[in-house]
Amino acid sequence: MESMSFVLFGATGDLAKRKIYPALYNLYLDQKMPSPFSIIGVGRRDWSDEEFQASVRKSVQTFSRRAEMEEMDEFVQAFRYCAVDVTDPEAFKPLQSLVAQREAELQIAENRMFYLSVAPEFFDVISSSIKTSGLGTTKGWKRLIIEKPFGHDLKSAQQLNEKLGAAFAEEEIYRIDHYLGKPMVQNLEALEFANPVFQALWNNQYIANVQITAGETVGVEERAGYYDQAGAIRDMVQNHLLQMLMMTAMHVPKRISANDIRAQKRQVMEAVRPLQKEEVAQHVVRGQYAAGEISDKPAVDYRGEPGVRPDSMTDTFIAARVWIDDPFWKGVPFYIRTGKRMKEKSTRIVIEFKNPLEGLYHHHQDKPAPNLLIISVHPNEGIALQVNSKNPSNSGKIEPVTVDFSAGTAGVPEAYELLLFDALRGDSTYFAHWKEVELSWKWVEPILAAFRENLVPLHFYPAGSYGPDAAEKLLTADGFQWWLDQAPRREPVASHS
Amino acid sequence: MESMSFVLFGATGDLAKRKIYPALYNLYLDQKMPSPFSIIGVGRRDWSDEEFQASVRKSVQTFSRRAEMEEMDEFVQAFRYCAVDVTDPEAFKPLQSLVAQREAELQIAENRMFYLSVAPEFFDVISSSIKTSGLGTTKGWKRLIIEKPFGHDLKSAQQLNEKLGAAFAEEEIYRIDHYLGKPMVQNLEALEFANPVFQALWNNQYIANVQITAGETVGVEERAGYYDQAGAIRDMVQNHLLQMLMMTAMHVPKRISANDIRAQKRQVMEAVRPLQKEEVAQHVVRGQYAAGEISDKPAVDYRGEPGVRPDSMTDTFIAARVWIDDPFWKGVPFYIRTGKRMKEKSTRIVIEFKNPLEGLYHHHQDKPAPNLLIISVHPNEGIALQVNSKNPSNSGKIEPVTVDFSAGTAGVPEAYELLLFDALRGDSTYFAHWKEVELSWKWVEPILAAFRENLVPLHFYPAGSYGPDAAEKLLTADGFQWWLDQAPRREPVASHS
Repeated sequence: MESMSFVLFGATGDLAKRKIYPALYNLYLDQKMPSPFSIIGVGRRDWSDEEFQASVRKSVQTFSRRAEMEEMDEFVQAFRYCAVDVTDPEAFKPLQSLVAQREAELQIAENRMFYLSVAPEFFDVISSSIKTSGLGTTKGWKRLIIEKPFGHDLKSAQQLNEKLGAAFAEEEIYRIDHYLGKPMVQNLEALEFANPVFQALWNNQYIANVQITAGETVGVEERAGYYDQAGAIRDMVQNHLLQMLMMTAMHVPKRISANDIRAQKRQVMEAVRPLQKEEVAQHVVRGQYAAGEISDKPAVDYRGEPGVRPDSMTDTFIAARVWIDDPFWKGVPFYIRTGKRMKEKSTRIVIEFKNPLEGLYHHHQDKPAPNLLIISVHPNEGIALQVNSKNPSNSGKIEPVTVDFSAGTAGVPEAYELLLFDALRGDSTYFAHWKEVELSWKWVEPILAAFRENLVPLHFYPAGSYGPDAAEKLLTADGFQWWLDQAPRREPVASHS
Repeated sequence: MESMSFVLFGATGDLAKRKIYPALYNLYLDQKMPSPFSIIGVGRRDWSDEEFQASVRKSVQTFSRRAEMEEMDEFVQAFRYCAVDVTDPEAFKPLQSLVAQREAELQIAENRMFYLSVAPEFFDVISSSIKTSGLGTTKGWKRLIIEKPFGHDLKSAQQLNEKLGAAFAEEEIYRIDHYLGKPMVQNLEALEFANPVFQALWNNQYIANVQITAGETVGVEERAGYYDQAGAIRDMVQNHLLQMLMMTAMHVPKRISANDIRAQKRQVMEAVRPLQKEEVAQHVVRGQYAAGEISDKPAVDYRGEPGVRPDSMTDTFIAARVWIDDPFWKGVPFYIRTGKRMKEKSTRIVIEFKNPLEGLYHHHQDKPAPNLLIISVHPNEGIALQVNSKNPSNSGKIEPVTVDFSAGTAGVPEAYELLLFDALRGDSTYFAHWKEVELSWKWVEPILAAFRENLVPLHFYPAGSYGPDAAEKLLTADGFQWWLDQAPRREPVASHS
């Protein structure tokens, strides 16, 4: 790995403490960091290097899956701090000096990684000042890591991208979608391409439908201000759910490389059938949680949450039917679903296979269960295949059984660890390409418009359920059902008006 | 279920005690026996009904997986005994009277099931006397259950079948191959036909080869007299291994019925490429165990076993490459293997899939492992699928993992229980049809001849190994290997001359 400087904007922030320092530390323990390395923390506060290092140390001790003490001293010595008012271009000069000074001290090549762990309104000014200050003018390479949100609609995303583009080329920009850092999402590539048994089945000849669920049991918590403006559609669908859809539906690339895999994902997104604003209601279910119960504890309704407008029409739940108009997926609905305050915290992909030989067993009492491939993404990780098997203890009756592999999650690197390692190596496979982001926004645009104009009913669902009935009906209308939902749904509550 | 009389020849014998009474008792407990029912035990000894009932009771207590006492009294009341010298046709008259008397007493329809649990040399006289005595002339149905061996070569099998055919029609004959009673062998039907994911892959487009192993750790034990004449080829290959091969390779029937499934099996056996005597050595490995170790205990060589000729050339191990010349299996070798004194007691079917996308991962250090479908038949029962998955703890390296389903074997009916239940119901699906038996003998004939004429080398293998090296070479010559063998093979021992 090439030596580099890692310049972290937002070094005193929450994400840095919870995710970035622990991830860097674990990479360090696994000798997956460049050596020597230089980390420059940038923040508004007036910290000394020692204060910064103490803060890093504390973050690691608090949040890391490992916190061996012996290595800690050496690790934090690589950290330096620089207070910068990022809205002031002049303030980048001392930063530039510090980076260069450390490069000289440590004999590090002029490779510079900039991580903007800051609010999105600062993306523009920071990237611009990186350019104008000379920080980004190096003999080596430069890279930019940013995190969602990438805009709040198509137009703002395009504007943001244009501004970033003035300072960084597309191949220098690493857009984190942390779902792409989840091991089982990354594993989709191997499942599809390194397993001929799955590859053979990966098309509309064998697959009846695909179900992608990302359910949370939490409500909006402290993020109400942001969330009430964003809704599930921006917070989850435009990015994470469409990314999982692309990863699931992509076709075999010519080579296993970042460019080829991302090109395949883009092709999927290009083939996703656009929605007209008027037809959104047929394919998209908008929900908002009402009062209910999570794990037997009462849960307040969304409109009753602190920071939420009492007449909010914000979607805390989305279910959608997505069609991919290419020869491989023609006729196969992809159902996506996400929600807050759902019965179950679970991110999973369920692939239901067709059963052309169903008629063979028509004399059996029960219809044979379909074969299902279940990819558990979070919090459990694993692969399971539901197959039909004779039960010798039940007169040889054919019953579904599950063959499964549960990945041990102990010691498995977190999403940030995997993603940072890839960024350090310059492997952009699991980062969102601008085209993916743009195409996703394009698909989402008419949904945003339909919500805004209230063309889609807002269904209320009790906290602790699998969402509104309408999400069930979306599938039953096609002759399908959501698989693996744990228990019968409760009666719907009376709608708020 | 229709009421019937169950007439058991060999009622005082070992198989009756170990397998048949326990099986009947378990069926009784599960209410899978006709009610009322009449069981007439036939033997040479001069037993009273009470002695017989006591013997049945003791067998159940000793060998049954369940032996609830409350039900035992009622169960044994159904048993009557009749001493018959089966070589004397006159001796069948009292038997005929007893059967008829019990039918009248219990108001049982004249349905009669005859089970010949006797040495094969008596099959002929018994079936003939069943006919001449009038036992087999009923207003209801009659059925005959017999067990292997069905002849010791093609000709003797044909002669036996002709004789049985004089008294019973083919559809009245239930030939037990107890491997067909094993739950996982019966399950092959459901695996192939009730699972579109497997059915889609069940042909030469996706399957590279099939490996069927039936390994035993025991030696010849008390059966040396029989075994030294039979060898593994007659004891295991002609029947059990070819039956498993037919069950694995059969194609989708029009309907799930005994006739249709057995027709499919027959078609497989008809398509098995015949061997010429001269080419047997290319496709068949003959082995005999030498001294060695089983579970760290020394084990004597086959020729040193009591009852074995000291210069015996008998095969205690067979491995063979079988080609099925039909469009589905063209080019897919089926490897079969069986042996005594092997390292591991295990009956299993391993299906290795092709990997047309292997080249995609050429830049990885290791060739990706092939996908394997593993059907464990005995002593473990289960289905497992080996797939390739990224290991996030190992830098995302693609490694094989196994998704598996292990059937609980507690409470699972034994082969005899399943088979007897089927025979009672008149379902002959899992009994060997004469055509299957005849075709199997036809395929085996040139092997017998080649062994007799010593055209095939006899390889010695150490007890406790996976057989001779030649069995490995059979596969490596085709670019394959036996999967799942537990440990590296030991060095071959010096050959006995």
